[in-house]
Amino acid sequence: MVNDNGWFTEVYPKHGSAISLKVVEKLHEEQTPFQRIEIYETEWMGTLMVIDGCTMVSDRDNFLYHEMMTHPALYTHANPETVWIIGGGDCGSLKEVLKHPEVKKAVQIEIDERVTRLAEQYFPELCDSNHDPRAELLFIDGIQWVKDAAAGSVDLIIVDSTDPVGPAEGLFNAAFYRECFRCLKPDGLLVQQSESPLFHAELIRDMHHTMRGAGFATTRTLFFPQFIYPSGWWSGTLAGKGTLDRFREEDARQRPFATTYYNPEVHRAAFAAPEFFKPLLPR
Amino acid sequence: MVNDNGWFTEVYPKHGSAISLKVVEKLHEEQTPFQRIEIYETEWMGTLMVIDGCTMVSDRDNFLYHEMMTHPALYTHANPETVWIIGGGDCGSLKEVLKHPEVKKAVQIEIDERVTRLAEQYFPELCDSNHDPRAELLFIDGIQWVKDAAAGSVDLIIVDSTDPVGPAEGLFNAAFYRECFRCLKPDGLLVQQSESPLFHAELIRDMHHTMRGAGFATTRTLFFPQFIYPSGWWSGTLAGKGTLDRFREEDARQRPFATTYYNPEVHRAAFAAPEFFKPLLPR
Repeated sequence: MVNDNGWFTEVYPKHGSAISLKVVEKLHEEQTPFQRIEIYETEWMGTLMVIDGCTMVSDRDNFLYHEMMTHPALYTHANPETVWIIGGGDCGSLKEVLKHPEVKKAVQIEIDERVTRLAEQYFPELCDSNHDPRAELLFIDGIQWVKDAAAGSVDLIIVDSTDPVGPAEGLFNAAFYRECFRCLKPDGLLVQQSESPLFHAELIRDMHHTMRGAGFATTRTLFFPQFIYPSGWWSGTLAGKGTLDRFREEDARQRPFATTYYNPEVHRAAFAAPEFFKPLLPR
Repeated sequence: MVNDNGWFTEVYPKHGSAISLKVVEKLHEEQTPFQRIEIYETEWMGTLMVIDGCTMVSDRDNFLYHEMMTHPALYTHANPETVWIIGGGDCGSLKEVLKHPEVKKAVQIEIDERVTRLAEQYFPELCDSNHDPRAELLFIDGIQWVKDAAAGSVDLIIVDSTDPVGPAEGLFNAAFYRECFRCLKPDGLLVQQSESPLFHAELIRDMHHTMRGAGFATTRTLFFPQFIYPSGWWSGTLAGKGTLDRFREEDARQRPFATTYYNPEVHRAAFAAPEFFKPLLPR
């Protein structure tokens, strides 16, 4: 919502805080069957997409989230040929995934086609790779997709979802993780956005335990800044059928594409757990 | 300033953004000869100190700033016996410095005594070590202090200041760095808070060049999250007369004190430069 002075504000009611972005113009607003989407032109953050009142993606800082939700997991897997992106309707994660020449097939399973259609219109640079022959865009329920998929059919699942309330709630539980585990090849892995280390440490803790309970051998959380998300500090959590200690560092160093945040040093750094976080982790 | 609904808001006008914290109660407000200080009880961030409208320190997240402005520099220096803290009136950095048994003398040079007196009253846990026999609290101008100090008299200078406008402006220029360089012992180093990598990358770039121009052989920036500072992502920049590549890792691992964020992995991680940052650095 935008006030009379032209500020969009997202309130984090449980954490007594809020961020505001100065709006130049509202570009679009619609209610889809799933959620309310707003698009704004902001003064400094560029174009901004808001879903159900929560900031989702901005021109200025989306590189942090999209690079960190993709490259660390891709360079952890020995040979990621098949990738699914559950959610990710703005196509920013898909674009990063397709930068990897090893990837032969990337399927984006977004429940709300309108997110993607609006991204194509308002965030065209995120949709650069939507017509890559290796890309497939499906607009169906990701939970149903993993239920229906064949066992051992994918190398990497990226869960690029909204918060664990509303349409994305079913992406944060044991039943979903068990289906992901089943769909993954023996060396497969999952990475999921896992909220704020400052605001939601218990959620991340629970995610580790639930992922391990669903069969994953190892789990690790990576940390990165993200101004427009609650607390400005965000995380992704990986779950591996096998090791997560692998890092194809030389491949990352020789990567045949540009990045804005990610590099091999950032990769290693992102996995450093803050001291307060260690007691929350399994084992 | 707090609005009618009880929200304190800090606006970042150049970056079209703002954060807000829900206030339970205003505890104090005064105009000192240097600045306006407000103290609030907030709903989730605990007690909050605001100087000239900018959030300075909160109970909930000050551990990030205070640990990262001290421990990485202290464990970079081979044997930090004498430490000066320029600014740092809330005493949080002093407390972290005095956790190091190597430190024989820590002098805090804060221009505004009221900051410290209010910290003693409203942030008593940050002031735990103010009566440590190794501590000396001075309430004088830090710029004058370094001008008057003997050459080669200190191992580590921590510049824990407000933003480079107002009273702290003179802490971000070549003349100040030259005096710091002169005061440092041959193996001495300086660390200074250096604003947001997202909002102020050019300021950090200029700081590197100015520090090197003032005689420092090497400079390095470290990165950490800090919710209540602009963009939620903050930095400190080190300047060394000698190497900054040293890390007393075993000492950090065996540290005889508790930390909330810092540990040896976080130490290494904090120095990883984002890809966009690398072209800004000297050499």
